[in-house]
Amino acid sequence: MGFFLGVNVSERKDKSEMNDEIVAGNGLIHRRALLRGALFSAGIAAAGSGIINAQDNVGADAPEWMKTPGRPFSGYGTPSKWQEKVQRIFTIAPGRAGTGVSRTPLQLLEGTITPNGLHFERHHNGVPDIDPSRHQLFIHGMVKRPLVFSLEDLMRYPMETRIHFVECSGNSGIFSQPQPQQVTAGELNGLLSCSEWTGVKLSTLLADAGVNKGAKWVIAEGGDAAAMSRSIPLEKCMDDAMIALYQNGEAIRPEQGFPMRLLLPGFEGNMNVKWLRRLNVLDVPVDARDETSHYTELMPGGKARQFMFAMGAKSAIVKPSFGMTMKGAGLYEISGLAWSGAGRVSKVEVSADGGKTWALAALTGPVLPKAVTRFRLPWKWDGQPATLVSRATDEVGGTQPTRASWVAQYAPGQGYHFNGIQSWSVASDGTVKNVYA
Amino acid sequence: MGFFLGVNVSERKDKSEMNDEIVAGNGLIHRRALLRGALFSAGIAAAGSGIINAQDNVGADAPEWMKTPGRPFSGYGTPSKWQEKVQRIFTIAPGRAGTGVSRTPLQLLEGTITPNGLHFERHHNGVPDIDPSRHQLFIHGMVKRPLVFSLEDLMRYPMETRIHFVECSGNSGIFSQPQPQQVTAGELNGLLSCSEWTGVKLSTLLADAGVNKGAKWVIAEGGDAAAMSRSIPLEKCMDDAMIALYQNGEAIRPEQGFPMRLLLPGFEGNMNVKWLRRLNVLDVPVDARDETSHYTELMPGGKARQFMFAMGAKSAIVKPSFGMTMKGAGLYEISGLAWSGAGRVSKVEVSADGGKTWALAALTGPVLPKAVTRFRLPWKWDGQPATLVSRATDEVGGTQPTRASWVAQYAPGQGYHFNGIQSWSVASDGTVKNVYA
Repeated sequence: MGFFLGVNVSERKDKSEMNDEIVAGNGLIHRRALLRGALFSAGIAAAGSGIINAQDNVGADAPEWMKTPGRPFSGYGTPSKWQEKVQRIFTIAPGRAGTGVSRTPLQLLEGTITPNGLHFERHHNGVPDIDPSRHQLFIHGMVKRPLVFSLEDLMRYPMETRIHFVECSGNSGIFSQPQPQQVTAGELNGLLSCSEWTGVKLSTLLADAGVNKGAKWVIAEGGDAAAMSRSIPLEKCMDDAMIALYQNGEAIRPEQGFPMRLLLPGFEGNMNVKWLRRLNVLDVPVDARDETSHYTELMPGGKARQFMFAMGAKSAIVKPSFGMTMKGAGLYEISGLAWSGAGRVSKVEVSADGGKTWALAALTGPVLPKAVTRFRLPWKWDGQPATLVSRATDEVGGTQPTRASWVAQYAPGQGYHFNGIQSWSVASDGTVKNVYA
Repeated sequence: MGFFLGVNVSERKDKSEMNDEIVAGNGLIHRRALLRGALFSAGIAAAGSGIINAQDNVGADAPEWMKTPGRPFSGYGTPSKWQEKVQRIFTIAPGRAGTGVSRTPLQLLEGTITPNGLHFERHHNGVPDIDPSRHQLFIHGMVKRPLVFSLEDLMRYPMETRIHFVECSGNSGIFSQPQPQQVTAGELNGLLSCSEWTGVKLSTLLADAGVNKGAKWVIAEGGDAAAMSRSIPLEKCMDDAMIALYQNGEAIRPEQGFPMRLLLPGFEGNMNVKWLRRLNVLDVPVDARDETSHYTELMPGGKARQFMFAMGAKSAIVKPSFGMTMKGAGLYEISGLAWSGAGRVSKVEVSADGGKTWALAALTGPVLPKAVTRFRLPWKWDGQPATLVSRATDEVGGTQPTRASWVAQYAPGQGYHFNGIQSWSVASDGTVKNVYA
């Protein structure tokens, strides 16, 4: 992949002016430097491919696709055929059912919203084919009035619309391995997606059912062949939890829980139970198979830590990243994703010298709580080896530890809830490698 | 379609308390009334279908889709097969090429983002199949350095990500007809979609080219078989115009301009030239075919008004709307979309008595400039005939005229830039009709 066309800034006349905009070591510059104009096209000109001479007849030689009528209208569109390699990333062969994951190809995407077709998947026994007219959601246990809802019942309730990420607790677990793996940003961090969700607040339904005194937990069960089950603190259910019915405007996709899923903003993905069927209100958690056999964190002493719900503050540079090649010294945009299960991202710092000096990246607004935020920073690469690092901090002060200190907390190989700092090294030939800086 | 299950509020014990929350005539109530709990489930209970009795064994009878492994992973997902009727709405038969439109089925969607597969289409000679590696964007005319960009060139530029609507100038033109048409909200207003767009600011590219003194217009031309062309004020190009490369995270779809389109936030859709190929900087507009043969507004005196760029403040209730049936007196959520080409929506007023009294709807945040905003308001329908109306106001004070005063501005049949107030009548049998209130 060659996303970048290098800009030879040594050709520029106003180099001194640009140097005023240096914000950290090894070429990180302020975004306002770009407002001064001509930085990027100067590079194209230097490469001999940008400036054209013919003023009178520019582009008069129409390409063949302008000479014949195009394709007709379609009922439900699909991506361009030229984008057919933009697919979810599999660890097991596509077409195989059962338990597993597929990842969002973060390095091929932009912005913050994940298109529905590329939202990561995590299934424990495949994607059930649920008839929405026959699906039922039960609320029972320690409630005054146990209730059952059809999809039609839920549709008449007041709804809310919010943008939130969902991240698998095992996302980026590959960083627990002793050696850095040379794989794409999507393979490293693609158990993360972000959507606009619309549905009914769970607190509204629980208020209708009337929660009994002493209740503290809600056991959520999915209507899939794994009956995926998790114990959720009642406090979260009464806060920002949602029964999500729509994803990016349309009915939630089968892989994300059609016709309904539990959405627990900021909490680890598997707790956001898909194909939601039962909510059992209890005074204790149930130690379900899905919260004991996995999704626990093995500690150095041999004990396991359970119920670590919220995902930490985290960031990853996706541009540049492994698989891309930088085309010579010059100007580039560093861009990546930052998020936190605790609220809004308050800042993202970027370093081009392996963490010696840092600059603040620009955050794409609106910065929303428990949503993915895109960060960007211009970089004047001098063509020498460099190490790019990012570090997110959230509004409650949570930040990213070094990988080494994160790993040291746990027994070897523990890979849940990784939020350590990540680094890419750029070699002088423009290749990009995952490194433990 | 039956999106609503009525709630018989006459069964409620605390009716007097709820009456305190009345905010306008004919049953509009404040959203905080819902926080008092049990309003909606009381209705389900009255209908005899919500409360369940068996406490010990709730939902133990698992449906068949829990008894066999589900479907495997997929590379690029599609909507549920149960959603196959959620398609774009055609006026001409699907499969026919040439000029025409297909509309977003607004009444079947929720939230604010339009899924890429359902973004409305407007093609003047079909969808070209452009090889992205061979596509070129030219900037020429009154510039110091005419430039040509490949997609790869643009990819290295600094990018921006913003959520904006695109609305065809002919959207809702059906309201210029003398009699109200009984069609769905999508057929009325579905030449409107909203996406997260990512791309390069046009001002950055124009600064690189160096605009000459005296330049005032930019002629944008598409690379389709219609060579769709529009004259754009230079001022807009230097403001918030973008060369959009991504739509809701992934490469822009063929129907929306793959590999690149011009995005002019708030301006009528056809100016947001798709498959963008040439930008010719001039001191005058060119009176292109596409800005003279149509997209002009015929006035009562027989003259036509040209270059009415920005779309006005506008709103439409989509829930309830034509094709849905209300199921008896009770509580419902009124929900709809509001937008303005001038900036943020500042308020949406809703009336349930044909415009005699109005209440403020809740706006789903974040309210973004030149983006679709979802509004919601609870309504206690008494089962009698009612007329629902909405009226949006934007941050610069723009608002919606009555349909009658909007129509009176123009020659008969002029249908561009309709932003008059729209109304639905609800009959006592629960059916919903489009009316000129």
